[in-house]
Amino acid sequence: MFKKTLLAASLAAVSLVGNTAMAAEKVDLLIKNATVLTMNADKTVYENGLVAVKENKIFAVTDGNDVNEYKAEKTIDADGDIVMPGLINTHTHVSMTVFRSLADDVPDRLHRYIFPLESKLVSRDMVRIGAQLGNVEMLKGGVTTYADMYYFEDEVAKTVDEIGMRAVLGETVIKFPVADAANAEEGIKYAVNFIEEYKDHPRITPAFAPHAPYTNTTETLQKITELSKKYDVPVMIHLAESERENQVIAERSGGKSPVEYMADIGALTPNLVGAHMINVSDSDIELLKKHDVGVAHNMSANIKSAKGVAPAPKMLEEGVRIGLGTDGPMSGNTISTIDEFNQVAKVHKLVSKDRAAMPPMQVIEMATIGAARALHMEDTIGSLEMGKLADIIVVDTTSPNMVPVYNPYSALVYSAYASNVKHTIVDGKILMKDREMLTVDEDAIRQEALDFADKVRKTVVESGEVVQ
Amino acid sequence: MFKKTLLAASLAAVSLVGNTAMAAEKVDLLIKNATVLTMNADKTVYENGLVAVKENKIFAVTDGNDVNEYKAEKTIDADGDIVMPGLINTHTHVSMTVFRSLADDVPDRLHRYIFPLESKLVSRDMVRIGAQLGNVEMLKGGVTTYADMYYFEDEVAKTVDEIGMRAVLGETVIKFPVADAANAEEGIKYAVNFIEEYKDHPRITPAFAPHAPYTNTTETLQKITELSKKYDVPVMIHLAESERENQVIAERSGGKSPVEYMADIGALTPNLVGAHMINVSDSDIELLKKHDVGVAHNMSANIKSAKGVAPAPKMLEEGVRIGLGTDGPMSGNTISTIDEFNQVAKVHKLVSKDRAAMPPMQVIEMATIGAARALHMEDTIGSLEMGKLADIIVVDTTSPNMVPVYNPYSALVYSAYASNVKHTIVDGKILMKDREMLTVDEDAIRQEALDFADKVRKTVVESGEVVQ
Repeated sequence: MFKKTLLAASLAAVSLVGNTAMAAEKVDLLIKNATVLTMNADKTVYENGLVAVKENKIFAVTDGNDVNEYKAEKTIDADGDIVMPGLINTHTHVSMTVFRSLADDVPDRLHRYIFPLESKLVSRDMVRIGAQLGNVEMLKGGVTTYADMYYFEDEVAKTVDEIGMRAVLGETVIKFPVADAANAEEGIKYAVNFIEEYKDHPRITPAFAPHAPYTNTTETLQKITELSKKYDVPVMIHLAESERENQVIAERSGGKSPVEYMADIGALTPNLVGAHMINVSDSDIELLKKHDVGVAHNMSANIKSAKGVAPAPKMLEEGVRIGLGTDGPMSGNTISTIDEFNQVAKVHKLVSKDRAAMPPMQVIEMATIGAARALHMEDTIGSLEMGKLADIIVVDTTSPNMVPVYNPYSALVYSAYASNVKHTIVDGKILMKDREMLTVDEDAIRQEALDFADKVRKTVVESGEVVQ
Repeated sequence: MFKKTLLAASLAAVSLVGNTAMAAEKVDLLIKNATVLTMNADKTVYENGLVAVKENKIFAVTDGNDVNEYKAEKTIDADGDIVMPGLINTHTHVSMTVFRSLADDVPDRLHRYIFPLESKLVSRDMVRIGAQLGNVEMLKGGVTTYADMYYFEDEVAKTVDEIGMRAVLGETVIKFPVADAANAEEGIKYAVNFIEEYKDHPRITPAFAPHAPYTNTTETLQKITELSKKYDVPVMIHLAESERENQVIAERSGGKSPVEYMADIGALTPNLVGAHMINVSDSDIELLKKHDVGVAHNMSANIKSAKGVAPAPKMLEEGVRIGLGTDGPMSGNTISTIDEFNQVAKVHKLVSKDRAAMPPMQVIEMATIGAARALHMEDTIGSLEMGKLADIIVVDTTSPNMVPVYNPYSALVYSAYASNVKHTIVDGKILMKDREMLTVDEDAIRQEALDFADKVRKTVVESGEVVQ
């Protein structure tokens, strides 16, 4: 309905060309003189284009010939810089920023190191402090929407609400005692309360986050599936990630793969977003497609732990909903999707033994509209098209690493640093301008994180628990 | 000799502690309150250390307790930031920045695309313009020394001299006509003239750069080996890089590998630096070790072209001289070594199926003292030790991606952006301060590169020669 109205408005605007007597169209924000990567179905690129924003939505995306038809509250002259949809990080654990660079590369790290560390140190404060820091890192790297799985997600939600980002926040459910629940049943209760509190938030989508199939019972997974249908919310899970998972699930199910098992118990649904999906066969991929499951592809983190590379090219070919994720800051270790671009493009070429594999446009697709598809949010975010929510980034092309730009997709994927993001706009609001945060105090956030890190040092590093 | 003098001076300084009546030691630059990664043989790290510089050399590197013993012309308070040796890029083609993002991922790109492009567009101007831009990119990314192979290297040398960096510059010799020589013989003459002109330059080491074994005759390679001994200069070559090379060399030599062939013709010497070394067997590695050859490991570029991954862990184990290189900006596509760290650490874990493979400290080693060893320059650069040349960088730890730092090696390898480099010092001079270039006009350099890119667009892009 809204889209139709905008279409009409846009057609009216087009008809204004050449008729200077007509009144200019009032908009809130106009970004002009931009290399616009729309990431629409045709992958339209405007070399000297514009994006106009009214309230929190995109009002027009054009070749710029109509630039004088708008009267804007605020104007950004992009001066040739790249303007594109905000990046969408399909999988992270944002609060773990406070643990970044602790005990990297330890064997069986999750079970031997991370779970025990978390049982000592996860708290409401830790979750809030880590999320605040990670939000700033992501926004400064052009991430406008992220999907998170952790504990005390209501604390993460408060930080997202405050800074002005968009997020899908999944409250963890796991069978052993964790900081905010003694068992899976309590975890589900916590999640339901969180979902009820946030289900009408304009920028936050609350979700269930069962940790993994092998760390939950079949009964728990089925209960969550049922509740996700009742509340119409996503379910995010680590799936087909590790050998340990393969073994546990094969024992539990009489030799099935994790994806087959999830299908069998009725837990593969369009609400599901599976992170990793490294150990998937062609028939598993068919199941993902059939059940319209979303996939978070966290290649950089997956190779850091030597787990392997998910068959993303095959999934793309089969039309599976797949987008890039960073995994958490103890895994990746950075959480701006742009840090992944280079590796994603290159490692798939190595693995496929084909230098034409995973071309830059496909990487940018997996970071924008593809990631939106993975989260089932492609109707509202992921591309610059009229009527969509105004989540937009401007990427500087004057930094030496970005000079020259013959092909903007190549420049973004093979050359860009996360720090080349110049402005970040979410829901029509400029949250970062010229690399300055406008809605939060970055210095105060960093200081709080550093103070928490001192506590971590005293608790686990100085005791000798961590061999650095 | 010089080292001994400094040792004595330093011991004298130590004896001053507690004796405030003595005069302070006058130094030109003092960097204090730093997390100092010395990259010395013991990998000493000072948590609150200092580095003192006199003229172009390091005068002292200490734990900082003696901070009041120095009277400095200039002082940098690092405020906890990481201070480490300048990075050394062991292999690039700096002038090709002006072609960056052109026709990425084309099959057989070197022969079908790059050589023809170069025959049209390489000129003195192009080499100068591209080098100026690349120098800025590298200095801003913390590279203080680089090794280059291209044409008109005397033009590159002028830019290096002007900006104040350190470089090993290799004039290309190749058997077909190129911009600055009609054949290999002319290429050798050009190189000899260049070497004679620059052999006494304090920061520039001129060198021969035979393109590859398969693009030169045995006679040319032997002639260059002989001349390199006469002039005592390095020989840089692409070696063991591609299938095509394997085939040509096998046909020429009766089935030998490129490394075996080079050994057989007497061209494996301590002057040689071989770039890539992807296709090397264990016995090839023994030959590299035996002949004390340097290796430039360009992993990121090598996987972009799906050529494979050089067995760097094995070479390190065998004590081969190996350092990180970026390859050229059409190959990598960025040329700050720091952009490689993450990938180098992670892809070796993937290839080795071992998450403990290629730990962060080893990556930093390959970017500093290891790279110096690859270029046979470890006596003068690559670590922060008294008497060494003062090539030093300061890496910001306040950017959100660098918070917190439990382990500086992990933070640098898994989290740092090239743009986190805050100050770059070469030969005792601050060339970049707070990300501002002090010796060249970055805006003018960028504009000249953009103007040249317009010419490239008109020549090859608009004619349809390039499918983007």
